[in-house]
Amino acid sequence: MDETTKRHNEKMKRIKAARDELMKTKTEEKGLIMVHTGAGKGKSSSGFGMIMRCIAHGMPCAVVQFIKGTWMTGERKFLTHRFGDECRFFVSGEGFTWETQDRERDVAAAQRGWEIAKEQILDPDIDFVLLDEINIALRYDYLDIDEVVDFLLHQKPHMTHVCLTGRNAKPELIEAADLVTEMTLLKHPFRDGVKAQKGVEF
Amino acid sequence: MDETTKRHNEKMKRIKAARDELMKTKTEEKGLIMVHTGAGKGKSSSGFGMIMRCIAHGMPCAVVQFIKGTWMTGERKFLTHRFGDECRFFVSGEGFTWETQDRERDVAAAQRGWEIAKEQILDPDIDFVLLDEINIALRYDYLDIDEVVDFLLHQKPHMTHVCLTGRNAKPELIEAADLVTEMTLLKHPFRDGVKAQKGVEF
Repeated sequence: MDETTKRHNEKMKRIKAARDELMKTKTEEKGLIMVHTGAGKGKSSSGFGMIMRCIAHGMPCAVVQFIKGTWMTGERKFLTHRFGDECRFFVSGEGFTWETQDRERDVAAAQRGWEIAKEQILDPDIDFVLLDEINIALRYDYLDIDEVVDFLLHQKPHMTHVCLTGRNAKPELIEAADLVTEMTLLKHPFRDGVKAQKGVEF
Repeated sequence: MDETTKRHNEKMKRIKAARDELMKTKTEEKGLIMVHTGAGKGKSSSGFGMIMRCIAHGMPCAVVQFIKGTWMTGERKFLTHRFGDECRFFVSGEGFTWETQDRERDVAAAQRGWEIAKEQILDPDIDFVLLDEINIALRYDYLDIDEVVDFLLHQKPHMTHVCLTGRNAKPELIEAADLVTEMTLLKHPFRDGVKAQKGVEF
């Protein structure tokens, strides 16, 4: 074994020991409030990646889409056509807000979505709820942030996971969350004239 | 209609006009080189969210996992058990590098993974290839960054999408990529003693 390999193996051994020690302290299980925000890609798609994991583990789940309403995205087609039993799928939004140009309709749609969201979160049969693009509805005050945060902190069942996605997450939500990830855009092909493509963007 | 609603609707109309104008210039379709990096969550799971979209759209795809090797993750179980026809799944890694403590074995595993990756990318039947955690293999120089970048830029078929995940993406890869997202950790429940949980982390 050469010197580089030996040093590498020793370093990895130290990392493993430190990590094993650390992981001993990680014993709690609880339902998490998770937020995916930022201007980068991957906020919704990583939510759907977790839905895939839940289905694999036999954990019943639900999706409420707040904004992407009118078109058949890949994830919607996939889940409604193939996993209707494992994952409930609800759409409350009616396209992006700049498509509708009708605040009252958007508010009504968001409120309907939030009523469904609460039902799903309270349902003891459901382990994981994805509230896709709810941050957009919160940002435009289609939903009351205090009501949403209060519900998540005080009425969400202890073991239920809730993931809330969308850019511009409100500070109150970030404060209340257990796990917050910001997706930052370092580079985007739109800048070079490439359009949104299936599989990648929807 | 009240004044707030009217102003909102007008603002949305202006946004829509500007966006429609912008989207007219986005006409190109091409296979993208995508990188998900950073210390936050969602790098792999958003890759798997895109795999879900591809399956929904009937786009054949492949996954090569470079590091997460020895355990049955949700995504692996889901894809191998239910979507063996739609998505090819390969595992080259043998656990995290600090688990193996054997650089030579890790290098050999990464090299095997890269050979499979090249075959899948070159296969005209495959539209999307996810190289999960390849950035870890690149970081430790288990794979040669120049070889990988050169292959992606000059041998990848024009319409094939490739998504490379893992923290600490090399600058050469970021430079070569079309779309780069950095997942930044704003808050993580490990800090409060919560352990990795199924559905969420694996």
